[in-house]
Amino acid sequence: MSSFAPASKSSNDEAQKASSVTTYPVDIVKVPYKPDATVDDVICFKYYNEDEVIMGKPMKDWLRFSVCYWHTFRGTGADPFGFPTLKRSWDDGSDSIENAERRMRVAFDFMSKLGVKYWTFHDRDIAPEGATLDETNSNLDRLVELASELQDKTGIKLLWNTCNLFAHPRYSNGAATNADAHVVAYAAAQVKKGLEVGKKLGAENFVFWGGREGYHTLLNTNVREELDSLANFFKMAVAYKKKIGFTGPFLIEPKPKEPTKHQYDYDAMTVIAFLKTYNLDKDFKLNIEPNHTTLAGHGHEHDVVMASSYGMLGSVDSNTGSPDLGWDTDQFPMDVKNATFIMKTILDQGGLAPGGLNFDCKVRRESSDVADMLISHIGAMDCFAKALRVAAKIKQDGVLDKMKQERYASFGSGLGAKLKSGNATFEDCHEYIRQKGEPERRSGHQEKFETVLNRYLL
Amino acid sequence: MSSFAPASKSSNDEAQKASSVTTYPVDIVKVPYKPDATVDDVICFKYYNEDEVIMGKPMKDWLRFSVCYWHTFRGTGADPFGFPTLKRSWDDGSDSIENAERRMRVAFDFMSKLGVKYWTFHDRDIAPEGATLDETNSNLDRLVELASELQDKTGIKLLWNTCNLFAHPRYSNGAATNADAHVVAYAAAQVKKGLEVGKKLGAENFVFWGGREGYHTLLNTNVREELDSLANFFKMAVAYKKKIGFTGPFLIEPKPKEPTKHQYDYDAMTVIAFLKTYNLDKDFKLNIEPNHTTLAGHGHEHDVVMASSYGMLGSVDSNTGSPDLGWDTDQFPMDVKNATFIMKTILDQGGLAPGGLNFDCKVRRESSDVADMLISHIGAMDCFAKALRVAAKIKQDGVLDKMKQERYASFGSGLGAKLKSGNATFEDCHEYIRQKGEPERRSGHQEKFETVLNRYLL
Amino acid sequence: MSSFAPASKSSNDEAQKASSVTTYPVDIVKVPYKPDATVDDVICFKYYNEDEVIMGKPMKDWLRFSVCYWHTFRGTGADPFGFPTLKRSWDDGSDSIENAERRMRVAFDFMSKLGVKYWTFHDRDIAPEGATLDETNSNLDRLVELASELQDKTGIKLLWNTCNLFAHPRYSNGAATNADAHVVAYAAAQVKKGLEVGKKLGAENFVFWGGREGYHTLLNTNVREELDSLANFFKMAVAYKKKIGFTGPFLIEPKPKEPTKHQYDYDAMTVIAFLKTYNLDKDFKLNIEPNHTTLAGHGHEHDVVMASSYGMLGSVDSNTGSPDLGWDTDQFPMDVKNATFIMKTILDQGGLAPGGLNFDCKVRRESSDVADMLISHIGAMDCFAKALRVAAKIKQDGVLDKMKQERYASFGSGLGAKLKSGNATFEDCHEYIRQKGEPERRSGHQEKFETVLNRYLL
Amino acid sequence: MSSFAPASKSSNDEAQKASSVTTYPVDIVKVPYKPDATVDDVICFKYYNEDEVIMGKPMKDWLRFSVCYWHTFRGTGADPFGFPTLKRSWDDGSDSIENAERRMRVAFDFMSKLGVKYWTFHDRDIAPEGATLDETNSNLDRLVELASELQDKTGIKLLWNTCNLFAHPRYSNGAATNADAHVVAYAAAQVKKGLEVGKKLGAENFVFWGGREGYHTLLNTNVREELDSLANFFKMAVAYKKKIGFTGPFLIEPKPKEPTKHQYDYDAMTVIAFLKTYNLDKDFKLNIEPNHTTLAGHGHEHDVVMASSYGMLGSVDSNTGSPDLGWDTDQFPMDVKNATFIMKTILDQGGLAPGGLNFDCKVRRESSDVADMLISHIGAMDCFAKALRVAAKIKQDGVLDKMKQERYASFGSGLGAKLKSGNATFEDCHEYIRQKGEPERRSGHQEKFETVLNRYLL
Repeated sequence: MSSFAPASKSSNDEAQKASSVTTYPVDIVKVPYKPDATVDDVICFKYYNEDEVIMGKPMKDWLRFSVCYWHTFRGTGADPFGFPTLKRSWDDGSDSIENAERRMRVAFDFMSKLGVKYWTFHDRDIAPEGATLDETNSNLDRLVELASELQDKTGIKLLWNTCNLFAHPRYSNGAATNADAHVVAYAAAQVKKGLEVGKKLGAENFVFWGGREGYHTLLNTNVREELDSLANFFKMAVAYKKKIGFTGPFLIEPKPKEPTKHQYDYDAMTVIAFLKTYNLDKDFKLNIEPNHTTLAGHGHEHDVVMASSYGMLGSVDSNTGSPDLGWDTDQFPMDVKNATFIMKTILDQGGLAPGGLNFDCKVRRESSDVADMLISHIGAMDCFAKALRVAAKIKQDGVLDKMKQERYASFGSGLGAKLKSGNATFEDCHEYIRQKGEPERRSGHQEKFETVLNRYLL
Repeated sequence: MSSFAPASKSSNDEAQKASSVTTYPVDIVKVPYKPDATVDDVICFKYYNEDEVIMGKPMKDWLRFSVCYWHTFRGTGADPFGFPTLKRSWDDGSDSIENAERRMRVAFDFMSKLGVKYWTFHDRDIAPEGATLDETNSNLDRLVELASELQDKTGIKLLWNTCNLFAHPRYSNGAATNADAHVVAYAAAQVKKGLEVGKKLGAENFVFWGGREGYHTLLNTNVREELDSLANFFKMAVAYKKKIGFTGPFLIEPKPKEPTKHQYDYDAMTVIAFLKTYNLDKDFKLNIEPNHTTLAGHGHEHDVVMASSYGMLGSVDSNTGSPDLGWDTDQFPMDVKNATFIMKTILDQGGLAPGGLNFDCKVRRESSDVADMLISHIGAMDCFAKALRVAAKIKQDGVLDKMKQERYASFGSGLGAKLKSGNATFEDCHEYIRQKGEPERRSGHQEKFETVLNRYLL
Repeated sequence: MSSFAPASKSSNDEAQKASSVTTYPVDIVKVPYKPDATVDDVICFKYYNEDEVIMGKPMKDWLRFSVCYWHTFRGTGADPFGFPTLKRSWDDGSDSIENAERRMRVAFDFMSKLGVKYWTFHDRDIAPEGATLDETNSNLDRLVELASELQDKTGIKLLWNTCNLFAHPRYSNGAATNADAHVVAYAAAQVKKGLEVGKKLGAENFVFWGGREGYHTLLNTNVREELDSLANFFKMAVAYKKKIGFTGPFLIEPKPKEPTKHQYDYDAMTVIAFLKTYNLDKDFKLNIEPNHTTLAGHGHEHDVVMASSYGMLGSVDSNTGSPDLGWDTDQFPMDVKNATFIMKTILDQGGLAPGGLNFDCKVRRESSDVADMLISHIGAMDCFAKALRVAAKIKQDGVLDKMKQERYASFGSGLGAKLKSGNATFEDCHEYIRQKGEPERRSGHQEKFETVLNRYLL
Repeated sequence: MSSFAPASKSSNDEAQKASSVTTYPVDIVKVPYKPDATVDDVICFKYYNEDEVIMGKPMKDWLRFSVCYWHTFRGTGADPFGFPTLKRSWDDGSDSIENAERRMRVAFDFMSKLGVKYWTFHDRDIAPEGATLDETNSNLDRLVELASELQDKTGIKLLWNTCNLFAHPRYSNGAATNADAHVVAYAAAQVKKGLEVGKKLGAENFVFWGGREGYHTLLNTNVREELDSLANFFKMAVAYKKKIGFTGPFLIEPKPKEPTKHQYDYDAMTVIAFLKTYNLDKDFKLNIEPNHTTLAGHGHEHDVVMASSYGMLGSVDSNTGSPDLGWDTDQFPMDVKNATFIMKTILDQGGLAPGGLNFDCKVRRESSDVADMLISHIGAMDCFAKALRVAAKIKQDGVLDKMKQERYASFGSGLGAKLKSGNATFEDCHEYIRQKGEPERRSGHQEKFETVLNRYLL
């Protein structure tokens, strides 16, 4: 059956109540590290010890966690079948600047207490859209001012910002790929401002997620014309970035579908094909979200590994989903095996900086207590902290890496080396086989690899 | 990345503008039947000729189309990533009774012009929820009064009504299966009123869709306790139905997931298992939506066929989805082959009455013109009308049915007949094989069946 | 592109070589328990200590592992795109009785060394099919004789046997649901013998897997007629079981699809619907394979939990798959979190006996070393042994169970108790809500549950 | 449960019987075109009239159908759960040259009777592998000689050939991407011969399908090292092609998975990313199979459209699958709507030559009559012939194309034109929006497009 348009109302009562709240209501200064915590003491870290050095760096530098503003401070719990469920004492539900400011103060307090060093946001998360672009930008400036102050005060930095080019009805048929040039221009004007904001707040990266860049039916869509538009749009962004001296990497975040039937940035390799086709691959890297990877039909760590192997892994959205569901659930990552694969890849490429691990996660709409938003972040950080410890142990032991390398030993000499160098020919190979005949059978040893991995994980 | 909580606002301007609209703004009295319509004349039926007799009944009696109120008159185009896109001139976006009444007048005008004979609604579609249950019911009574008038005036009847037990935050953890008895009681009070409303409006069926009856994680869920609750709830409903003399069938609409991770009414067979377990199978039939069937991993027509074969097919939600998407898109049905399978099953069981073909479909949020809502219904009705014509031809010719029946001929006599009657034993079979030996190889002829089918479809 | 029909050949050389092998070629008497094993010592158990008592029973009694004959001793590594890859020194590839006997001796040696207490097989796994049913049964008798001896000698018991009603071309259009009664009779004669064999070998259960019972296209299929046939078939089996005094439970193993497009035994609830419809639910339980559960679109543990909650969980096939793949990969279970959910359910229902944990797993076709088959079983047994330890700790602590129970506390008294007892009415509920009004909002606490679970798992 | 290794045997009887068959046993010279055929006359074309001119070319030149040798002449009906079901009177099941020759004669007779103009094969389809590469190549030469004769005699041409680098156990861990250089060399030697064969037989293209080029677990795989190997391999192939003067295009056929967990050639865009990364995009085009496209999570026509829009669509494997199944079923295409999307794209790019529509389809293993293989090809050809007629009508009418083009009209002048030319800047866009403000809302009209399309299809 049936979806129902969610709506949200605020009353004077709510506004009054909200005005008195200025901090995240939990009775601690900072979530402590307690390696001996009992099972049900969930307001502490059992594994995450931010300054503990692992493989030459403090944990916080390997992990570079960030809290996302949209889910954690703008999420309402509304879904296609239900109204908002998450009422926060500090939020009166209005679109006022005052409400936006109060919300931001609580957010920085929350992040300080949680102990994360980074945050991320869309332009429209932090400030309300006005009646005109100028008014919208002016609203944004006020909140950026406050963000700048709060960043200075707390030491929390901006991992990346991005522009919301998908929620406003004007973008329903796409932003940079809209069939109407007027809409493309609007999106460009919005990203222009987004880059200026990023520069002001010292964003270490800037992200593009093309939620509406794709198609619902090929019947009404000229795919190549839209991809050309997208490339032109990115080229304008690169030019403007250089002009204003924004130095962080540009990151594209692939997603296969939802809300579109097909999103042009389907997965890591699709984005790389696009970037190479339009000679944009020097200007962009990827922000990979494993929940999107699984929606594209791959294993959880696939796109992280592929992007890294192509030298294109810039950052990670570290949330997860349920493999039996066909939409993006943006759940908190709680599976240590999955997180270990991610962290091993990050260790192998020497870290993610200037990227990080952004928690693009939302508490379930059923998790309506204000404490749930803290507990969920702690659980996820601990999951990744444990994964870092495991991955580092695996890497330092070297057992699994050595098992893998040995499989490729034959490329070290003889015809193997010639093949690897690109100097062999079909005739060389033909001659080799005539002399050497059939290769020996070699096991791939998958179950042995899995068993050894489990020795670290269990 | 990122979802964004949709919101909707109404201004005084919108309210003023809306107040002047009382009909669906299209310049016709009724969509005409034009068998020779040109390709781009889309405000007419090419195949649906409501009074034309097919296999002994007028088309309208085989098809029993209904317009759903929620998508067509309450849908806003909001999705998890975007704000409303569908602004209707008659709707000021407010929760006022006046707006509700105006909307309903336009709806009946729309349905009259379209030429459908039935409508369907959830309680909360037609009237706003009040501050208390009494106030809510009183609001509902006002709109039911108007609906009753408009039904009388137009001759349009109520195929079924249902209660929205999923949108309000109180139901976020389930309605009849909530872990909190207080919520269960609320749902019961709501359905009590829903049945009274159904009786008053002459609803020909009453539907239950358990959008929140399921689980998100088994960690916090006692499955059997919740299923027991669900059965108790249905038993109360049966008792009350009898008490007030509501005579239409109860229908359960299966859906596998979304919004829950697992919905207890996963698919047709799961519902049948539940009904049989709790001895409810005499009191309920199924309302099958093929879009839900495909989400459960089956072919499009599977649940319609299974429910029918178990004598449990009560009604059909005739929308469709995209098999490459993992959520319910509720698209208008536009595939004649799929529709033909549905109509053939309906012909085979002698019709759907008192059930019907409910269009639980919504125009894409990108289809923002008011005309799109008319065109989409016409296209879908024509698709099913053509499918009825094809299915009837197939049935009357008998070629495909005969090909199928011949495959089972061996059960007509000898050991086959004994097996079919349930009187054979393993010893009989053993003896038979010792005498007759290996069976002949017989082709299933799938490609021949498909080729013959295409002769009807092409 | 393109599948390629696999084939297998044996030469005289292979036959000669094979004849000299009579034991599984590993230089140990029994896989040892070494809780302090190094990471790469994979021929030992780190967690499985068969006689260690957990919650009142030795580990071996909770786990009741069995080795399956088909994958481990008849698997060749052939797949739809490739020829066999797994050559075993003891197997000359022929269909001779001698080869079958040698293979069986090696199998019992392997199981003894591995330390499992149970095995499982299809009739056609252990003995070659002959030219007639009599010859086939006579071949089978010879190998059953040997199996009986080897069971006595090693103490290894038969968890269950089953009949292969899917591989022979005669069953290509189904066995019990074939459109040809002659084929149904053949299947019946085969199961008759299978039950006799089970009785002789002391099988603790008998399993039905309906690999060909389903449809490829509804165009050529009369679904209800086939389901009636299936029920008749099962009734004959029940009668014969009673007649010969076979006392173990009958188990149906659900699978949604593959090789058929739709298998009638789609998932747990579908089978329960079938059993209830035909009054067979007292005579059958379910053998659940989580790899099939995920193929049906559910979470890994879903069917185990559902079957258990309905009192229908008889046994478990404990292999796994990849959630991103749409076919049954029958991989060795290596994920402790998944295994923990299974073991917790088993602990909650007080054990699985007379069922067990059957390893319906195959080494990857790339895992071509003979050692891989041992390592893979060890890894899987250790995974489940660790899971048992974790699940027992969770159960004994009671923290998670208590958190869950508290959610349902309101059903302990007042209207909740009346609802639970089935004595409440809609009128009661209506009155209650008029007095009590809106329920309080309660969090489902999913992330807290997950965080607490991780405290046990990490 | 349980797979079962298929096997195949041949007896002397079968060999004797086979030796007397030299033609495809159907009593016609050529399948006739009968536009007025009755519904059940399935040995004729109702829509395919090979010389009828559509949009300036005979139907046969638009459609360029080819029969694949592997499914149609080497398929046995074996599947992972069952033995062969398809016994052909001309095939004694042996690996002899005589059997191979007889089979080829029947194949050309079949194709002549069917009226297709092209065929396709893998090297190992037509000739048995010998004990050494030399012996294998010598076997191949004998059959190539015969193929050459039969091509001349019948006028049937070779659309493409390819090498089977996936069925032999040596390739179980990959061919060009194997971790063992020796295996890579073997694959190279095999492709060397394959190119020579292609040249000799006038192949119009040469195809690479990397069935084993991918991974089963990232634990044992160095992804980038393997991709480098693949690129080196393709570069050797390009060099050798030029050396011997093979002039047809090289085509890569994407597939996401099966038999591997992840195949490096996942989908069209993934292959394009690979080709661009290694500067191979001038030397290769794509052979798209929509059944693989849907397995990759896309809509049926997606990869055909994407490849075409990038100028990379070389050929099409025109089989289909079931969207509810997660493996490659290689069914005959019987859905006219799907085929129409394909043909419209082909018309839009001016044809597929030198590519074609290859039927990489197999009769169901249940379709065991020899007539089924003819009927299935006829049904598929008629489906595409009808689709060509519909697509041509759509293109000639121009209604749908015009509706689409109008959506992009704003790029024809003003800022739109500047954006399209790549000369606009963010500053231009900012200024434009400040002046023009909010864009007008425009409908995407999906349902109208679908309704108009149905006017052509119904």
